[in-house]
This record gives sequence, C-alpha cells and structure tokens, in this order.
Amino acid sequence: MSRWEPNARERLAQAALDLYAERGFEQTTVAEIAKRAGLTERTFFRHFADKREVLFAGGSELQELMVQGVLASPDDAAPIDSVAAGLVAGGETLQERRAFALKRAGVIAASAELQERELIKLASLATALADALRRRGVAEPTASLTAQAGIAVFHVAFARWVEEANEAGLPDVIRDSLDELRAVTAGTR
Amino acid sequence: MSRWEPNARERLAQAALDLYAERGFEQTTVAEIAKRAGLTERTFFRHFADKREVLFAGGSELQELMVQGVLASPDDAAPIDSVAAGLVAGGETLQERRAFALKRAGVIAASAELQERELIKLASLATALADALRRRGVAEPTASLTAQAGIAVFHVAFARWVEEANEAGLPDVIRDSLDELRAVTAGTR
Repeated sequence: MSRWEPNARERLAQAALDLYAERGFEQTTVAEIAKRAGLTERTFFRHFADKREVLFAGGSELQELMVQGVLASPDDAAPIDSVAAGLVAGGETLQERRAFALKRAGVIAASAELQERELIKLASLATALADALRRRGVAEPTASLTAQAGIAVFHVAFARWVEEANEAGLPDVIRDSLDELRAVTAGTR
Repeated sequence: MSRWEPNARERLAQAALDLYAERGFEQTTVAEIAKRAGLTERTFFRHFADKREVLFAGGSELQELMVQGVLASPDDAAPIDSVAAGLVAGGETLQERRAFALKRAGVIAASAELQERELIKLASLATALADALRRRGVAEPTASLTAQAGIAVFHVAFARWVEEANEAGLPDVIRDSLDELRAVTAGTR
C-alpha cells in the first residue's frame, strides 16, 4: 500500500461514521475503521488522534466559518444580525454535508459521552462568537448575551433540522428560529 | 463520635468547599474533608456519593426551584415571563447563599473537568425548563427556544454577578440581562 492514498481522510471519516452507526461508537475499533476504508491503522493515526476526533474535527472548521461570517457582516449590522450571518454561514456548510451531518447526529445522540462532548463544543463556539463580536467593537455583556442567544437558536434549529427531516434547508431553519426567538422575547409567543 | 451529628451535611459541604478553594479540587481527599469538618469519612459517604457531588448536589434543588417557579407563574404569562419567574426564583436562593455560591464558582472556574460538569448541568436545566413550559401548554419549538434563551440569560447573568462583585443582587442582574436580550433580539443593541 503506498503512503499516499487519495481522499484517505474522507474515506476514513465515512468508514468510521458508518461503523459507529451500525455497531455503536464504543464497540468500534480503529482497526475496523481502517479495514473498512481499505487503509492501515497507521494512516488513520496520521489523520486523527483517536476515534472520537473523527466526529469532532469538523467542529473547528465550522467554528471558523461562523466566526468569519460574523466578522464579514456589514459594519452597521446589529450584533444579532452579525451572529445570524455567522450561524447561516455554518448552516450552509452543514446543509452541503447533510447526509454526513444527520448520520453523525444519530451517533452522537446514542452516546452520553459524545453528547457531553458536543455540549462542550457548543460552549466553545459561543465563546468564539462573543470574541468575534468584541473584535467588532460590541461591548459586554451584549457580546456574550448575543453569542449565547445565537447558540440557543442554533441548538434548537439544528435539532429541528435533524428531527423533522423536513424539506427546509438548515439556513432557513436557523432564520425561522431566530424570528421565533424575536417573537419569544417580545412576549408575542 | 455519635452517629447523629448536627448539621453534618452543611459542615461537610463547607469544609469541602474551603479545601477545594485552598488546595484545588483534585488535590483534596475525602479524608481531609471529613477531618476538617470534625467528622468521619463514613459520615461523608452517608451524605455524598463522592467529592464532586458536594459541588453539584445543590444543582438539583436549584433546578426544582426554577421548574416550580415556571409552573407557578400566572396562567396568562408569556413563556419568556414564565421562564424569567423560574430563573428569578433560583436567583433568590443563590443570592441567599452568596458566599458559598461565589466560592463554588471560583472552584469550578479552576478546573476544566468541573466546568464541563457545570455545562452539562446547565443543559439539563434547559431541558427541565422546556418540559415545564410544555406542561403549561407551550408548543415546540417555542418551549425549547424559550428555555434555551432563558439559560443564555442565566449563564450571562451569573457570570456578571460573580465577576462584577457588584451591589446588585442576582435576581436584579437576571432581570437586567433579560431586558438586554430583548434589546439584542430587537436589534436595538
């Protein structure tokens, strides 16, 4: 087997996810993932630190996309609209990877340990969004509150997108959920 | 030493918290906690499953107070006002235990493991508040979104209360933070 393998990372990630969904995360070994992908364990460890990282490596990329979305929003955008721009940017990418994202969500939902890890990633995303707002000159506590509210919207929108298996794309579900939050805080819901 | 010890639970909790603050959570043993409280390890384990539970046992009580606050709010209250009533009920109790709550927050902030546990408790609180809203007839996704928004408010208000060491009581900081969330979602911040 040559050292260079085309799309090794993607093949490993897909093989891992398929096995986690079939057998459960705990019951799957790195050896089985490598075998399913037609690669070696050594190749696996060139791409991922461990089998959990397969599920969470994309989170850093998603966070960076959302932060860039916040920073790229118009100068005169209200903080909540900057955060919405960031969330929608992330939502577009998840929408493009819909099959992977939905299967991943099912694997996470089946494991208390993975759910805890996901919560911690969401908290770190909130911190990153608040940092981005402060870089745009938004003061505290507005920055933290807007970021936390954004995460609340994302959390609920993502769950709706997964559960309803609806026609609407994630960006639209995010926009709808933000409108719903506006109605909730205005007391009209 | 008699089997019955007055205020054993409170003495153990205070001794544990003092030691965690002085030496760090990881570095403190149950034997040291019992000794500081003038009690036995056996008595400790009659009250707490392990040394982490000393920090989190109060969380269930707080959650129950908040849920009752939601359920006891006026029938015609908007969902966000029901959640606010629950958060304020919890905030009043934390305010009464201010010294303990602030010291506990310092111990949590010093440990990544404890911070993760705190995040998980907050997520479970959001789930409990959403359940309480559904029992009042609030539909989804409004119930989940309102509960998540409430947790965002509580999270930010609690951090302000701890960090600013200000004169304002936690219930007032919660009310202020909710007003701030209203301004944020209305786009006037």
